[in-house]
Amino acid sequence: MIKIIVLNKMLKPEHRQKIEDTAKGLGAEVFFTEEEKDIPEDLAEAEIMYGYGLDTARTNKNLKWLCIPYAGCDALMKPDSFANKDCILTNSSGAYGVTIAEHMIAVSLMMMRNLTDVYEESLGGIWGPQRPQRSLKDSRITVLGTGDIGTSFAKRVKAFEPASVTGISRSGINTDPVYDKVLKTEDLDSVLPCTDLLAMSLPGTPETRNILSKDRIARLPEGSFVVNVGRGSAIDEDALADALESGHLAGAALDVFGTEPLPGSSRLWKTKNLLITPHVAGNLTLEHTLNKNVDMFCNNLKNYMEGKPLTNLVDRTKGY
Amino acid sequence: MIKIIVLNKMLKPEHRQKIEDTAKGLGAEVFFTEEEKDIPEDLAEAEIMYGYGLDTARTNKNLKWLCIPYAGCDALMKPDSFANKDCILTNSSGAYGVTIAEHMIAVSLMMMRNLTDVYEESLGGIWGPQRPQRSLKDSRITVLGTGDIGTSFAKRVKAFEPASVTGISRSGINTDPVYDKVLKTEDLDSVLPCTDLLAMSLPGTPETRNILSKDRIARLPEGSFVVNVGRGSAIDEDALADALESGHLAGAALDVFGTEPLPGSSRLWKTKNLLITPHVAGNLTLEHTLNKNVDMFCNNLKNYMEGKPLTNLVDRTKGY
Repeated sequence: MIKIIVLNKMLKPEHRQKIEDTAKGLGAEVFFTEEEKDIPEDLAEAEIMYGYGLDTARTNKNLKWLCIPYAGCDALMKPDSFANKDCILTNSSGAYGVTIAEHMIAVSLMMMRNLTDVYEESLGGIWGPQRPQRSLKDSRITVLGTGDIGTSFAKRVKAFEPASVTGISRSGINTDPVYDKVLKTEDLDSVLPCTDLLAMSLPGTPETRNILSKDRIARLPEGSFVVNVGRGSAIDEDALADALESGHLAGAALDVFGTEPLPGSSRLWKTKNLLITPHVAGNLTLEHTLNKNVDMFCNNLKNYMEGKPLTNLVDRTKGY
Repeated sequence: MIKIIVLNKMLKPEHRQKIEDTAKGLGAEVFFTEEEKDIPEDLAEAEIMYGYGLDTARTNKNLKWLCIPYAGCDALMKPDSFANKDCILTNSSGAYGVTIAEHMIAVSLMMMRNLTDVYEESLGGIWGPQRPQRSLKDSRITVLGTGDIGTSFAKRVKAFEPASVTGISRSGINTDPVYDKVLKTEDLDSVLPCTDLLAMSLPGTPETRNILSKDRIARLPEGSFVVNVGRGSAIDEDALADALESGHLAGAALDVFGTEPLPGSSRLWKTKNLLITPHVAGNLTLEHTLNKNVDMFCNNLKNYMEGKPLTNLVDRTKGY
């Protein structure tokens, strides 16, 4: 009997039930655990894991399919990440678009409307003054990374009547009518000077490392905004902090960082007009995300057991 | 020559120019001031004022048209508000939908995603934990007041894929396809128990006073949210605070209050899960709002001078 390890501390009884029922119907057996160290010895060679099991991937030679409940899988791209080099890797891209897009809209508006300062004052019982406000309306928005997350953001931000929504992707292929146009990564330099809000939702790959370099930050117009929810490695953090301190950028909202948790000693904590969130834009605390995550795994489990092609396959040559 | 007083400290040179050019083309003369007390004596009987001139309205018997640059005009509904009882009153409803809707989306997401706590921690350099998150997706949203502001909000929130967007208005007439349905104020009691987010954008009138009473707050489901951007008089603030403290409501975001500025001694400053903003959801600091405001006045000035009907007429029997 095929054995499945499910490693996830956020699951509720109904999720366990759904996974168990699906597996049983397909002739597989499920073992639930919240910690990798609690996996019993007789399951050390399980064929399938649904969970972020980095140790299992590295040690279980019999693992044929690892489904991670997250979208980002850069931590599994090292040469020794898998004991079984042929192990299939799928991610849960598609479950996070809704929640991360809501985060992106929230932090964009918080910055543009100076709600951070307003909130800080309200904590002290201060009825503050009117402050300058900016608007998503008529803003030129560039979405760097047009996957599920970027496109979910684009669909929401479109309702705010921006001047334009331009996508940037590796292929430059426009996959959704929400974009006014989609350009290739090579065109980024020419798009940046016409960008009021740069929304970054890129996977962490060698290609995306430092993609928002010091030079490119300088290409953004005076008074523009940056939001990053992909991977911290995509930004030259020090150059970003300089551009915020100098006032070249009006604001930035980072949910991801080169080092996480962001060290207490980092200058970013004290950087002007920088909104820091502790990698919470997308996680399994949102019911919708967790439900969709489990649904996607169960559908793929059916595919796997029936010998059909899996969805959400990670292309290891690309890293996402 | 018809004399126009423009009372507005937010105007930029291009706005003054536009108003001046429009007036000159129509054979009228404009005087700009930032304070009512600075109006020279020979203009004390000007025929037109564009500004929030409560003193002028009360004293200038020759005032034939007052255009206020705001949407709310409850302060002009007193018996002695106008020296000339036949003075036409117009407001600038229509200029505020964009900015106030952005505020409403921002504070809704801040509450639902616990970004207030996250931000507070970030101020102290703390990389906080994951927190429970709620979503606009699949939420049942009730928009109380389906004017320009409520409908601008409805159009934006619709992109977040809510379960439903129900409008409530005096007439119950559905004026925009964004609403799944629009019901009359009489139906409010039956809609509240099916509301996850109540968005209030009502004018201040005798009818709307205390419309969200203690009884109605109790009708909202456990864990629901309230946003108010209309007038503070619409809510029983004490009952709201109780419902927040008890946990019956998951959160509320108030931009307007029974007394403004909100006194330092108010219990609201310390009420759990209450996000206070100092009446900044809509103001003239946003370029779009100010531009549209001036455009609307100039269009109406043309109407006035040409003897055509004015738009944005305030119906004094309704109070908006």
